Amino acid sequence: MRVAVIGAGNVATQLTTQLHRLSFQIVQVYSRTLESAKILAEKVEAIPITNISDIIDNADLYIFSVKDDIIEGLLPQLEANNGLWLHTAGSIPMGIFKDYTNNYGVLYPFQTFSKNREVDWHKIPLFIEASNEQSLDKLASIANKLSNSVTELTSTDRKYLHLTGVFACNFTNHMYTLSEAILKKINLPFEAILPLIDETVAKVHSLPPAQAQTGPAVRYDKNVINSHLELIEDPKIRELYKLLSEDIHRINQPL
Amino acid sequence: MRVAVIGAGNVATQLTTQLHRLSFQIVQVYSRTLESAKILAEKVEAIPITNISDIIDNADLYIFSVKDDIIEGLLPQLEANNGLWLHTAGSIPMGIFKDYTNNYGVLYPFQTFSKNREVDWHKIPLFIEASNEQSLDKLASIANKLSNSVTELTSTDRKYLHLTGVFACNFTNHMYTLSEAILKKINLPFEAILPLIDETVAKVHSLPPAQAQTGPAVRYDKNVINSHLELIEDPKIRELYKLLSEDIHRINQPL
Repeated sequence: MRVAVIGAGNVATQLTTQLHRLSFQIVQVYSRTLESAKILAEKVEAIPITNISDIIDNADLYIFSVKDDIIEGLLPQLEANNGLWLHTAGSIPMGIFKDYTNNYGVLYPFQTFSKNREVDWHKIPLFIEASNEQSLDKLASIANKLSNSVTELTSTDRKYLHLTGVFACNFTNHMYTLSEAILKKINLPFEAILPLIDETVAKVHSLPPAQAQTGPAVRYDKNVINSHLELIEDPKIRELYKLLSEDIHRINQPL
Repeated sequence: MRVAVIGAGNVATQLTTQLHRLSFQIVQVYSRTLESAKILAEKVEAIPITNISDIIDNADLYIFSVKDDIIEGLLPQLEANNGLWLHTAGSIPMGIFKDYTNNYGVLYPFQTFSKNREVDWHKIPLFIEASNEQSLDKLASIANKLSNSVTELTSTDRKYLHLTGVFACNFTNHMYTLSEAILKKINLPFEAILPLIDETVAKVHSLPPAQAQTGPAVRYDKNVINSHLELIEDPKIRELYKLLSEDIHRINQPL
């Protein structure tokens, strides 16, 4: 199966590398800058291109894995063909392809990717959607080669799923960033908080998160909450602390 | 070593159970309600009491592990003695004991505890502080029996440490609670998000959290951010999403 890849970011890099390992033939890697196209293309024995109209028209699979606001500008520069066109984004509806080709779909890997960090693809939940039955069959067969967890999901539901990912991954990671900054203030390494972070996650593998909640907010311990607010200099972070504490108390109130 | 325990909550339960395993002799467990005093006392072969003035005056160790606003009311009901008085709270200064006895300190286990969930004490970072050298020696020797990670920390720095725990544990756990609610809406089980949660944490074991950040906020992808804001019905959660996205972008801006 011949694959043209549009994009060379985090998702494109990890997905294309894995497809290459699974013996898919990656023919081209497009990126706006030659440098990033080259880095990925070399890894997967493909040709790097920076001009979108150089994309061949007889690939079996076209994977669009670029920033959400870029894809709309690229599509009008391509000609319809018989390949399956896929994107990998959480919040772009499948219909973005409908004016340009007939066989299209979405392959959304529900995971956080970095360019230089390997992930175990077999464990990544993949959510798929396609424009017709034939495309869905083709997409499902690709997805099942990649992962043991493949689920069909509509564009609307995928947007909600993406939103949960922002909370559980991006916002959570930001909590770690804020913790790290405070730890630096008291000269403790970030490693000091890893056992707590690990246990917080281990807990929700066996308890619903609302039941796993502990700390001053769920008890609504005003003494502690106020003494913490006094420590926070930045008014935005103070507002964040307040909002989150109120919300924890609101949602986790004992009945 | 004879130990009297004041409190029967999450921390008291896990700490006392571990001390019992390490052959400390737990003599009494105080709680306001007989039922909770009994549950813990039975586990550790101690006598449950509900009247604080029944606490014996010749124990070697008194551990106060009660809600932060309760401890102040209990102390005046006790008489000074030769034992070492400890509390386990992140945000109560050690000086709370100073009008009541001479040998006192703090043993702060930096972890999240639930009554029915066992934790590996050897890996819990313990932060300690004591009123004099003799008390510090005694406390350090107890702490080293419990854990491989024992660090001296002042009351002020401990408060900052506690604050980092609120961000990295309580607020993070709340992100999971919010995710779970959204997943329910689209009929997906919470398990669907566990690989993402696990990888988010695995990443910060090897990358600083700011470098590990991904998603629409760090890219400041306005299309996605706005489409997510449209999905969130609750104005407080919408405000939370906005604040967090702005803050991620502010802190993680490429230089």
